Amino acid sequence: VIPGQGLPVAVDAMGGDHGPEVIVAGAVSASRAGIPVVLVGDESRVKAALPRGVTLPVVHAPEVVGMGEAAVAAVRRKPDSSLRRAVDLVQRGEASAAVSCGNSGAVVVAAVLGLGVLDQVERPAIAAVLPRSDGGQLVLLDAGANVDCRPEQLACFAILGAAYARLLGVPDPRVGLLANGEEATKGNQQSRATLPLLQALPLRVVGNTEPHAALAGACDVLVCDGFVGNVLVKGVEAAAETVVTLLRDEIKRNPSARFGAWLTSRAFGRFRQRVAWQAYGGGLLLGTRGVVVVGHGRANAEAVHAAVKIAHQAASQGLVPGLVERLAAQR
Amino acid sequence: VIPGQGLPVAVDAMGGDHGPEVIVAGAVSASRAGIPVVLVGDESRVKAALPRGVTLPVVHAPEVVGMGEAAVAAVRRKPDSSLRRAVDLVQRGEASAAVSCGNSGAVVVAAVLGLGVLDQVERPAIAAVLPRSDGGQLVLLDAGANVDCRPEQLACFAILGAAYARLLGVPDPRVGLLANGEEATKGNQQSRATLPLLQALPLRVVGNTEPHAALAGACDVLVCDGFVGNVLVKGVEAAAETVVTLLRDEIKRNPSARFGAWLTSRAFGRFRQRVAWQAYGGGLLLGTRGVVVVGHGRANAEAVHAAVKIAHQAASQGLVPGLVERLAAQR
Repeated sequence: VIPGQGLPVAVDAMGGDHGPEVIVAGAVSASRAGIPVVLVGDESRVKAALPRGVTLPVVHAPEVVGMGEAAVAAVRRKPDSSLRRAVDLVQRGEASAAVSCGNSGAVVVAAVLGLGVLDQVERPAIAAVLPRSDGGQLVLLDAGANVDCRPEQLACFAILGAAYARLLGVPDPRVGLLANGEEATKGNQQSRATLPLLQALPLRVVGNTEPHAALAGACDVLVCDGFVGNVLVKGVEAAAETVVTLLRDEIKRNPSARFGAWLTSRAFGRFRQRVAWQAYGGGLLLGTRGVVVVGHGRANAEAVHAAVKIAHQAASQGLVPGLVERLAAQR
Repeated sequence: VIPGQGLPVAVDAMGGDHGPEVIVAGAVSASRAGIPVVLVGDESRVKAALPRGVTLPVVHAPEVVGMGEAAVAAVRRKPDSSLRRAVDLVQRGEASAAVSCGNSGAVVVAAVLGLGVLDQVERPAIAAVLPRSDGGQLVLLDAGANVDCRPEQLACFAILGAAYARLLGVPDPRVGLLANGEEATKGNQQSRATLPLLQALPLRVVGNTEPHAALAGACDVLVCDGFVGNVLVKGVEAAAETVVTLLRDEIKRNPSARFGAWLTSRAFGRFRQRVAWQAYGGGLLLGTRGVVVVGHGRANAEAVHAAVKIAHQAASQGLVPGLVERLAAQR
C-alpha cells in the first residue's frame, strides 16, 4: 500500500501571478479528470472563483505569501498562509501532495520546514521534465531551488534525479553534468569540482553534457545548480514559444498558407500535446519527506492542471518511499 | 575611413568538428555573396576542398589546434597553427577580421594574445545575437569566453554589449542582467553582487531579467557569465531545433497534413530565414583590438557563411573604433 493513495492534492489557491481564478480553474479541470483536490486559501475568494454548480473542498487560510517577499522570513511569519496550510495537510497525512504556483523560494522553504528532508539530503532540488527530440524525457535538476550550490549538493541531486528517472520508467538512467562542452576540461570551477564526485557514485555517469546533446537524448538526467537550471528551463520554454509564435505569424500572412495551416492543424495539435511546453506545469521537489510541486508563477489553468497531475502521479507512484529506497541503496 | 574596409576576412579553414570541407564550402558561399575571404590552413588540404574552378587566396599554416586541447598551452605551442596565422593577418592589417569554428577557448586566447585587449577591458566577451519574438534582436554576452567571472567583469560586458547594440542600430539599449526572477532579491551570489555595479553605470539598466522576458523584448542586451550564457544559447538553439523536428515528424505522419505542409512551406521558409537559428554562425568577440568571430564547432557551411558575414559587417561598421569611443565615453 502506497501512503497517500486516494488522498486529495492540496492546491495553494492564492499562489501565482494571475490570482485565484486561474489556479481554481486548473484545479477544477484536474478534478474533472479524476484527481481529488482540496483548495487552500481565502475561503470567500476561492469559493467565488469556483464555477457555478461546482463544489470542491476548501481549507480556509487567511494569509498569503507574496511573490516578491523574502522567502524564509515570509514563511516563518505567516503560519496561516495558504502555502503553509497546504504543506501542513501533506505533513498531517490529509493530502497526498501539495502544489503551489506562488513564490518558488517560499514554496521550497515551506516544504523543508513543514516536511523535513530525507536522510543524506542536505537541500532538496526541483526536477523539471523536458521533452527530448528522440521522444524520451529529460529530468533536469536543480531547476531553481538552490541558486548557489556546492559540488557535494550537485552530487546529491544526481542521486535524486536518477531515482526519479527510474520511477518514470528508465531502468538505468544516464546522468550528465551540464557544461559548456563535453570534454572533461570544460566547465566552470563548480562543475569541474563536481565531475569527479559524480564519477565516484554508483550511477551511470556520462560526464559533461551540453544542452543540445541532452535535449537530443545523450542523457536521462541532467545535473546543474538551480540558477543555471532555472535559466536554462525558462530559456528552452521561451525559445519553443518564440518559434511557434514566429511560425504562426508567417502562416497568417499568406492565404494559401492559412489553408495549409488548417490542414496541418491536427498535426499541430498532436505536436502540442507531445511537446506540451506550457503543460509542463512545474517542477517536482525531490528530497523532502512529502510530495510538493513548485508550479510556474506564470501558470495558466492548463499548467495548473498539469502541476496537479504531476503531484498526483508522483504521490501515487510512491515518490518518497522510492527515493528513500534509492538513497539507502547508494550508501 | 574605417580601417579594414575592402580587406578580406581570414577564415581558419582547419577549425571545427566537420573538417576543412565544410569550412571551405561556407567561405566559398560568403565569397560568392561578395565578401572577400582568405583561407588559412594546410594548403594542399584547403585547395583540395575548393570546388573545381573556384580559386580563393590561401595562406599556408601547417599546424592545427585540436578541439580538445588545453587552450593556452596549445595556442602558445603552435605559432604556425591556422588559428594563430588567421589572427596574425588581422594584427598585421592584412585581414579585416578573423573567423574560426575551432576550439573556442583557443580562439579567445589567440585573439587576446595576438591582438591585445582594449583599454578598460580585462577580458573580452563573446556576444551572441538572438532573434526576439517581438522582431528585435537580443545581444547576449558572455556567450562562452569566460566560464568564471567576477562582478566587475560582468559590468564591463554590459558596456561592451550596449556599445555593440548601438552599432546594430539600437539608439539607447536597455541592459538586463540574467537572473532567475525579476525582483532585485533574485539571482545568485554573483548576479546579486553585479546588479548594483550595473546600476551605477551610465547605461539604461532594466535590472534582473528572465530568459523569456529577454526573448520577448524586455531588453536589448543580456549580461551573464560565459558558462551560463553558453549553456543558455545552446539550450535556446536546441529547443528551437527540437520544436521544428517534432513538428515535422507530426506532419509527416499524416497525408493531408503533408499536403498542408506543402502549402505552408513558403511560410516555413520565410520563418527559417527570419529565425535562422542555425544561421547565427557564431559569437562576435568584443573587447579585443581586432574583429574575431568564434564560430560554432558544429557549424555547417551555412553557419560558416553567416559567421563570415558577421565578421565582415562588424569590421565594415567599425566595431573596434566604435567600442573604443563608447568605452572612453563611459569613463
